[in-house]
Amino acid sequence: MRPENRALDQLRPISIETGVSRYAEGSCLIRFGHTHVLVTASVDENVPRWMKGKGKGWVTAEYGMLPRSTHTRNDREAARGKQGGRTVEIQRLIGRSLRAVIDLEALGERQIVIDCDVMQADGGTRTASITGAWVALSQACAGLVEQGLIAKNPVTAPMAAVSCGIVDGTCRLDLEYVEDAAAQADANFVLTQTGGIIEVQATAEDEPFTSEQMDELTRLARNGIAELCEMQEAALA
Amino acid sequence: MRPENRALDQLRPISIETGVSRYAEGSCLIRFGHTHVLVTASVDENVPRWMKGKGKGWVTAEYGMLPRSTHTRNDREAARGKQGGRTVEIQRLIGRSLRAVIDLEALGERQIVIDCDVMQADGGTRTASITGAWVALSQACAGLVEQGLIAKNPVTAPMAAVSCGIVDGTCRLDLEYVEDAAAQADANFVLTQTGGIIEVQATAEDEPFTSEQMDELTRLARNGIAELCEMQEAALA
Amino acid sequence: MRPENRALDQLRPISIETGVSRYAEGSCLIRFGHTHVLVTASVDENVPRWMKGKGKGWVTAEYGMLPRSTHTRNDREAARGKQGGRTVEIQRLIGRSLRAVIDLEALGERQIVIDCDVMQADGGTRTASITGAWVALSQACAGLVEQGLIAKNPVTAPMAAVSCGIVDGTCRLDLEYVEDAAAQADANFVLTQTGGIIEVQATAEDEPFTSEQMDELTRLARNGIAELCEMQEAALA
Amino acid sequence: MRPENRALDQLRPISIETGVSRYAEGSCLIRFGHTHVLVTASVDENVPRWMKGKGKGWVTAEYGMLPRSTHTRNDREAARGKQGGRTVEIQRLIGRSLRAVIDLEALGERQIVIDCDVMQADGGTRTASITGAWVALSQACAGLVEQGLIAKNPVTAPMAAVSCGIVDGTCRLDLEYVEDAAAQADANFVLTQTGGIIEVQATAEDEPFTSEQMDELTRLARNGIAELCEMQEAALA
Amino acid sequence: MRPENRALDQLRPISIETGVSRYAEGSCLIRFGHTHVLVTASVDENVPRWMKGKGKGWVTAEYGMLPRSTHTRNDREAARGKQGGRTVEIQRLIGRSLRAVIDLEALGERQIVIDCDVMQADGGTRTASITGAWVALSQACAGLVEQGLIAKNPVTAPMAAVSCGIVDGTCRLDLEYVEDAAAQADANFVLTQTGGIIEVQATAEDEPFTSEQMDELTRLARNGIAELCEMQEAALA
Amino acid sequence: MRPENRALDQLRPISIETGVSRYAEGSCLIRFGHTHVLVTASVDENVPRWMKGKGKGWVTAEYGMLPRSTHTRNDREAARGKQGGRTVEIQRLIGRSLRAVIDLEALGERQIVIDCDVMQADGGTRTASITGAWVALSQACAGLVEQGLIAKNPVTAPMAAVSCGIVDGTCRLDLEYVEDAAAQADANFVLTQTGGIIEVQATAEDEPFTSEQMDELTRLARNGIAELCEMQEAALA
Repeated sequence: MRPENRALDQLRPISIETGVSRYAEGSCLIRFGHTHVLVTASVDENVPRWMKGKGKGWVTAEYGMLPRSTHTRNDREAARGKQGGRTVEIQRLIGRSLRAVIDLEALGERQIVIDCDVMQADGGTRTASITGAWVALSQACAGLVEQGLIAKNPVTAPMAAVSCGIVDGTCRLDLEYVEDAAAQADANFVLTQTGGIIEVQATAEDEPFTSEQMDELTRLARNGIAELCEMQEAALA
Repeated sequence: MRPENRALDQLRPISIETGVSRYAEGSCLIRFGHTHVLVTASVDENVPRWMKGKGKGWVTAEYGMLPRSTHTRNDREAARGKQGGRTVEIQRLIGRSLRAVIDLEALGERQIVIDCDVMQADGGTRTASITGAWVALSQACAGLVEQGLIAKNPVTAPMAAVSCGIVDGTCRLDLEYVEDAAAQADANFVLTQTGGIIEVQATAEDEPFTSEQMDELTRLARNGIAELCEMQEAALA
Repeated sequence: MRPENRALDQLRPISIETGVSRYAEGSCLIRFGHTHVLVTASVDENVPRWMKGKGKGWVTAEYGMLPRSTHTRNDREAARGKQGGRTVEIQRLIGRSLRAVIDLEALGERQIVIDCDVMQADGGTRTASITGAWVALSQACAGLVEQGLIAKNPVTAPMAAVSCGIVDGTCRLDLEYVEDAAAQADANFVLTQTGGIIEVQATAEDEPFTSEQMDELTRLARNGIAELCEMQEAALA
Repeated sequence: MRPENRALDQLRPISIETGVSRYAEGSCLIRFGHTHVLVTASVDENVPRWMKGKGKGWVTAEYGMLPRSTHTRNDREAARGKQGGRTVEIQRLIGRSLRAVIDLEALGERQIVIDCDVMQADGGTRTASITGAWVALSQACAGLVEQGLIAKNPVTAPMAAVSCGIVDGTCRLDLEYVEDAAAQADANFVLTQTGGIIEVQATAEDEPFTSEQMDELTRLARNGIAELCEMQEAALA
Repeated sequence: MRPENRALDQLRPISIETGVSRYAEGSCLIRFGHTHVLVTASVDENVPRWMKGKGKGWVTAEYGMLPRSTHTRNDREAARGKQGGRTVEIQRLIGRSLRAVIDLEALGERQIVIDCDVMQADGGTRTASITGAWVALSQACAGLVEQGLIAKNPVTAPMAAVSCGIVDGTCRLDLEYVEDAAAQADANFVLTQTGGIIEVQATAEDEPFTSEQMDELTRLARNGIAELCEMQEAALA
Repeated sequence: MRPENRALDQLRPISIETGVSRYAEGSCLIRFGHTHVLVTASVDENVPRWMKGKGKGWVTAEYGMLPRSTHTRNDREAARGKQGGRTVEIQRLIGRSLRAVIDLEALGERQIVIDCDVMQADGGTRTASITGAWVALSQACAGLVEQGLIAKNPVTAPMAAVSCGIVDGTCRLDLEYVEDAAAQADANFVLTQTGGIIEVQATAEDEPFTSEQMDELTRLARNGIAELCEMQEAALA
């Protein structure tokens, strides 16, 4: 009944290819089905001005979509002269999520900037971005340890993200675009490998949904994220 | 142990004063303790361009803080020339929440614009805004019915919002600023009077939290929102 | 003949309520009839960069209207991404007027920022803003003296502002909106209690007016401002 | 005692050269001493959108300074991406002043856009701009009559502008930059040839001034403007 | 002597992979050594407003670099709120070049928008973009013919672009970044397969160069572009 | 056959009037027929932040057109809030061209800012700007030598610019607007007096042109520029 006969609790085909950037300190191309996001992690030895002298580091993220990553072309945000509300919301979410699993003091007074650029979009770009961002961030941190700049890797836990939703009355894992567009509710989960909650955002589209449905969405997410964390680990190995 | 000896499941003193604007079709000044938000609902007989001719209405919201609503003065967004990421996120949340409890076809091809302006901020401005916005929207819709412009009130359900959080290891309802600043986790709930879920946003501040804690936050929110809906009803009576 | 039978030389009902902000160093809600402006004075221990090291302080002002302070909703300037010409003009006028009655050296190297936010507009918002701003500024300065940060209050004279205009051929004090919209000429006066001139801005709407009319407008303003200064004094007492 | 031994009631050397633009419907280069402003009037057969179908025309103005018109270079406003507050204020003043002496219905449904660009600035750029703008506007209107597009010239009265000020305790006509910088008060007058008031803007710089001083400034302006109107007439002849 | 022992008249390894976007009407990933550009062509059945009703089509281009496509991270233009001068220059060049080899009337009243996004930059991004853009444009046009929307392919000639430069006194084809940074002169050529000139931009870096050197650069470009056109043809086959 | 019977290799009447600005360190009004550009050179004793402490100077340029310099009025870029792509391209070209003939170390750690403002436009504004900019720059540098701030004039060579084009199949020097609008190709040359190449930009308008035509355009430019350099020399004498 789902496109390509996916089971309700089944992820799309996932791939995480690391080392895709010749210059970035960490990078991967992550694919959730036809959703493809290129993620880079850039180490900057300066922190933002408001953090100077606090002996702590910072992690922040930016997000963008190529104009023709979508079915019809969207305006380029650089040309329009501002980032849209959705972009701002997503990049704040990515940065916040990563900061929940990093020890900023152990990072030292430096900044890591994550760039998530959507090459192709078929639903779930923000959760794919977070999942890939954790990989690129981990790589960049590992590099700092290798170079002897910090003593231990400041990443404190494996973590990933996935979207779930209610479509045609059924709770489903990892919505693709056609499902997303038809969903009665849409929820994004950012969880640690062991189910610790980093961020949950659940939204009813047309009308409210029940807490039983919310529990089912949470269960789907927890299992999906456990799988994603294994793939992250494999990609980094 | 909470400021002013509040119980963990106790709301701050709430007041909702309607009719505070001489011109707006709906308005209220809502107070959650020292958080004061002025909300107006403006009926516009035109819908946005992209909705023209669809026979449906639209509800949208804007949010702002007076520069000195906070402990120290913040830059005026109009002077800086752009709305910050937090503002954009909040006003999108307010609009989305309201659209979940309104029948846009019953509203007819017109727009209602909600303005939430924070006069004074002591935590929970976004949830106070949503709670007040429902009141102002209901008033404006009632006015349309009275004028015979629409046949029935398009608001489909009572709804309110509240923030909860984990502070010093305890789950608490309706955080004020000092609690919010010290919270390990922070969650905003938008629910109907009967507990239907419209929006849930939960965020870990420093480290992940458990799903048991999430359940407790949800329980607190459900009770708080039931209380708030009674106050909304009283304010509109 | 004037709305509500006001005499030509009569102010609207005025009220000045101080202490309306929990956080600001000075504040008031000033009402000229249905025109309501919330004014705060914020002390900032830093001066703008271009004034550093000169041993003098600075006073500046910002002005805004809530989107639905007016009969029909206006776009939010923060959302449009720039302050309109009228806003810029008014806030420059407010700042300039205040600086004419303050000894910037006595203020010391710190800045006071005045925010005038129009809650409801029925004509005369800029003159109500200036009149209220003097109150908030005086309060903030008194606070600096009380804290022992400066030796004497740097405010050098009582001052207020009022608009006058020519409507239906008669010169009138303190125009409200319907009069303003029909005025042949419109003049804003900022004067000291004793009639010293700080700023005069007189504008013909359709055709030029005579210097005799200008003299009559000036006479009305001088009396109105003397009254306003008494109310300011009472509000601060 | 004044620079170059000018009398207190004496204008700087004035010249008004018309026809300086090959393309504009009206144009002049106006010089008040070392202040030089290039003014063009452009006829546009479309009115702004909000005026369509009202059977009336519109006159508006824009103002700019070349970056090195001043003693030290100023940033180019086009490069900074916004017009400063002073620019906005001045161009609003120019437009408003011109609209007080034009019959917008007689102009027909078309727009005249005045551009005032300061080539060199030595005080009084806004009043030179207005004085030159009246010339360019008159020329453009005369052209419309000549082409048979309108029946009569819609300009209703000769008009000019001049600045006056109080320097070293003396009231003076037509301040140049060194005087302006030292002035205790500064006033700009826009008057008709016969002394009708179009706009008066008087500002105390450091401390309030008296109404006797205001009267003297007005007297100086009235005489100066009568002279300027003769020069405008000569330039157009 | 050149990096990786390239001959002076030798291109870097080139690859052109088509069909890389699931949604775009034309697309390719073009690589000139380590310079990688993703190009899409989007067909839009609307022309820009100023072209409506002229019975002709339009081709335009936008260009961007991913923030970490370069050795050190650059600010994201969407975040800075404007496209830099270099970006604007490049995208104008791409669009102009393409319009020289397309029959806009044969294209019909529709627009093709080319997006060139640099994934990785190692010199020559603008010429790689043009070379790839011709491929994507050709594909999109072929699609229009296939769908029967136009009768014949409006692309009038094979065309490509390459950079040349003078480094250490020698003229070289297809500069990579380390050469570009050390070049005495830098020239970009856009030529047809048969050497017809579409655009030439030659720039001295430190001091002028001779017309003999210009001739040698032109000769190198002509040969390189003939090679590139063969690769384009192969990629489209 | 050309307008006003000009020969194909003939410049329009050229004049270069220096000393037109009372304040700028260098200035001229340059006329190529009806194209008039006012150029100023401003010496700034500070270099841009990114050049601090390198012991070298900088030369940069800005370009603008008065709104009514053209046949029909163009929007003012300061009012639109951004410089257009054409403006950005031209001012980058002017700055780059000047930096090719100045010894930035000999200039010392200071900046010279060139402003080119088009008073009237009839084709060739960018090349007139460059030609005039060299004069203003030379003047400003001579002034630095005279004041003893630098030992020798850092300008290394005489240089000028001219446009050429192919119109009605003939190659022509110094196109005016009506020719430019009808040109099959358009080329701008920036050369030293002796023919050294600083910048060449050649663009086909509708279809590619041949390298023989390019050679002829180059020949015309070389002769025209030699003439222009003599006029520059005369203007500076």
